[in-house]
Amino acid sequence: MSLVLDPAAQDLLFREARTANTFSDEPVTEEQVQAIYDLVKYGPTAFNQSPLRVVLVRSAEARERLVPLMSEGNQAKTATAPLVAILAADNEFHEELPQLFPAFPQAKDAFFSERPAREQAASLNAALQAGYFIVGVRAAGLAAGPMTGFDAAGVQKEFLDGDHTPLMIINIGKPGENAWYPRSPRLSFDEAITTV
Amino acid sequence: MSLVLDPAAQDLLFREARTANTFSDEPVTEEQVQAIYDLVKYGPTAFNQSPLRVVLVRSAEARERLVPLMSEGNQAKTATAPLVAILAADNEFHEELPQLFPAFPQAKDAFFSERPAREQAASLNAALQAGYFIVGVRAAGLAAGPMTGFDAAGVQKEFLDGDHTPLMIINIGKPGENAWYPRSPRLSFDEAITTV
Repeated sequence: MSLVLDPAAQDLLFREARTANTFSDEPVTEEQVQAIYDLVKYGPTAFNQSPLRVVLVRSAEARERLVPLMSEGNQAKTATAPLVAILAADNEFHEELPQLFPAFPQAKDAFFSERPAREQAASLNAALQAGYFIVGVRAAGLAAGPMTGFDAAGVQKEFLDGDHTPLMIINIGKPGENAWYPRSPRLSFDEAITTV
Repeated sequence: MSLVLDPAAQDLLFREARTANTFSDEPVTEEQVQAIYDLVKYGPTAFNQSPLRVVLVRSAEARERLVPLMSEGNQAKTATAPLVAILAADNEFHEELPQLFPAFPQAKDAFFSERPAREQAASLNAALQAGYFIVGVRAAGLAAGPMTGFDAAGVQKEFLDGDHTPLMIINIGKPGENAWYPRSPRLSFDEAITTV
């Protein structure tokens, strides 16, 4: 075995975990979301900039605002998932940098004084954190249904502000009936990885 | 416990795992990299587009070309890490889509006929996969040292082509002496997550 991670954990996080398209009625609790965040917040980002921000859509009123902004094929599952999370990149993350990276508080001005540099860093590092977040949802025994099919400008206007760029929206819950499509094939090692 | 993932696995992947800045001499084997890929390839991406491509820098000749392209503070660790991986987004991933997403082979033309749409999707989804990859390195009992401080145009010219955008470069190996900086603070739940 080349991996030291327990095989049951490999299955839970990657091999048997699947993107869910239907969900049971079982709620996702605040404690579960806090446990997920308390785990995945440790995932690394550049200068520990941690630009991921999450909006949990819990009220019926907020859900009603969100569903019409989803692509048609995503509306039914977003309407019925126990919890929906909007993942966004904070393009003004540099304001927290002196607190988040005390080893080099000058990083804020040295690298991130210009908005385009911040947007580029925020989109990359928040997407990296989105990967950790999906792993964390699975670590809680829940299924994630990440989606990029939505009206990004509309979601930004309704739920965020001009400093936060929505990256993806994730349905979260226990899988329901017929939750999975067949597993699609993956690229082989040699198709994805080259050696020089 | 709100997480079902074994606490030892939580520690291995997130709580005790750290970004390494020095490495031991122990090599990273081809079998380890194959096991990492064989695990993390299952992480979800939009339409299973799987745009992450990895260049493993194994030869002394390639390492000599890479080190001067790193930011000054990253050169010494990139020169000495047992393995260095260049992670890139394939902006022409749509060519593989009919194979990767047989449920809807029309996605290639319906959503990704234009290069800007492909670049946006590739950078988001490859960064998501970079998050899975870092988790996978840790699942192999190895430390990752991800870096975004390098000459991106130079790395693209030396190791990739116009269709592949470098996202980050990761040093991989067993940690060496004084491998860690002190753990930086993380945002609290309420700083990163809001509920509506």
